[in-house]
Amino acid sequence: MAGGLRDLSTDSALLSLNTATVRAQWSLRQAIEGCARHGIGAIGPWRDKLAECGIDEAAQLIAGHGLRVTGLCRGGTFPAADEAGRQAALDDNRRAVDEALAIGAECLVLVVGGLAPGSKDLGDARAQVRDGIGALLEHARSAAMPLAVEPLHPMYAADRACVNTMAQANDLCDDLGPGLGIAVDVYHVWWDPDLRRQIDRATGRILAFHVCDWLVPTRDLVTDRGMMGDGVIDIRRIRGWVEAAGYSGCCEVEIFSALDWWKRDADEVLATCIERHRTVV
Amino acid sequence: MAGGLRDLSTDSALLSLNTATVRAQWSLRQAIEGCARHGIGAIGPWRDKLAECGIDEAAQLIAGHGLRVTGLCRGGTFPAADEAGRQAALDDNRRAVDEALAIGAECLVLVVGGLAPGSKDLGDARAQVRDGIGALLEHARSAAMPLAVEPLHPMYAADRACVNTMAQANDLCDDLGPGLGIAVDVYHVWWDPDLRRQIDRATGRILAFHVCDWLVPTRDLVTDRGMMGDGVIDIRRIRGWVEAAGYSGCCEVEIFSALDWWKRDADEVLATCIERHRTVV
Repeated sequence: MAGGLRDLSTDSALLSLNTATVRAQWSLRQAIEGCARHGIGAIGPWRDKLAECGIDEAAQLIAGHGLRVTGLCRGGTFPAADEAGRQAALDDNRRAVDEALAIGAECLVLVVGGLAPGSKDLGDARAQVRDGIGALLEHARSAAMPLAVEPLHPMYAADRACVNTMAQANDLCDDLGPGLGIAVDVYHVWWDPDLRRQIDRATGRILAFHVCDWLVPTRDLVTDRGMMGDGVIDIRRIRGWVEAAGYSGCCEVEIFSALDWWKRDADEVLATCIERHRTVV
Repeated sequence: MAGGLRDLSTDSALLSLNTATVRAQWSLRQAIEGCARHGIGAIGPWRDKLAECGIDEAAQLIAGHGLRVTGLCRGGTFPAADEAGRQAALDDNRRAVDEALAIGAECLVLVVGGLAPGSKDLGDARAQVRDGIGALLEHARSAAMPLAVEPLHPMYAADRACVNTMAQANDLCDDLGPGLGIAVDVYHVWWDPDLRRQIDRATGRILAFHVCDWLVPTRDLVTDRGMMGDGVIDIRRIRGWVEAAGYSGCCEVEIFSALDWWKRDADEVLATCIERHRTVV
């Protein structure tokens, strides 16, 4: 597409289903079979669903249905109260790299963690994150598994991720070098007045692009994300910036919605994702 | 205090009660009398409570008890769908300037508004905010009433305020010139990796300093703020930066807490504010 957005209106090969979107309804096996049935080209599994299914079986199912794996969710949670905690986190992250490799994931998504238990020192948490990713990178590089740090919305700074802007993610990539990229989720970054500039700065290092929508009002900080088109995010504008920054991968739908979409029939959810991917994303 | 924080441990002259903290329990008259009874030196009224009380009566009560007024909450809400809406907002903001003047407020706090109705264009909303404040400044300057733009947490970008960082507030001050400053609320800015630098950049233009705490978990996006010391914000560190930037005003306690503090006896709330102001702020 010279000079414009890619055309997503004709098929769903570039649509990916993050399994969190149907996590209340479906096992990983059901999600894989559901994607295949609906013509969705890719999947983004979570580790809990992967463990339930078994890694070898999941790898076979995914390959058997010809799905791409746009990322494994998730590594991270680096800050800890002591050295033993940091080592345990590092060990678990190395296993996550191996799992990502086993299922042919295009990256391992990192939700980096918030404040260490009992701490109010965000600067220290951010330093622990930088050191933790640095330590993990050695293993990730030897496995040729890209790490994708995902900036999370500032409302999660305390308890989920203290990397809260694209600028911080770009700084980490600058500091830590090859093997580290960024997962851009519109839900987390849409508000950022520096977004366009920081996406441009991320040219060549965007490894994943997640979509959903910001509802007004939002009734819960974690589980009230909206279906694309039902909220206020100008998703297509952001996709344009991301594609201008060289991203040519899938759009991965990740909707945490205890109040709505997790209560619906999963096939209806997938059909809606497909329609909105064509018309809104 | 050469080289250190001001000592707040001995009295409450530099403590201000934002009336939202007891808005479920008390009228403005009760809040004024409560502050006087507890030795709290200042108050920050909201316009709805002010209107209930009557502006002249409120001004007399406040002066009679010798309270400072650290700010009137609030002007703002500039973005609108059309020119008539923008004009109505400007008219209302001019009235807010006059009310602030009538009660001797040290500033008018601006919560600038989010997306215009039906719009997904944050850039346009931010331009409308800049233009709206610019238009209001003429009246505010002639009244010698400082305007304090308050950056709100990014989770309010859609529906309350599209100025979400200290950097944006500083940019507005740079653009619009004298008469405009900043209200720093730790709840809104504590997560910002650029906070220290942007507070330093705000030297001489910080007009108000609001405190409360960020609870983990936070159960509601609007009405689940914590009492200072009950959450994860390192309030004293931020106060140190704010004072190093030349701020010598009060610490104003503003807690929206439908689930906790609004249910308690208001005298208990004030006593707790006083104790935490001495020990945590």
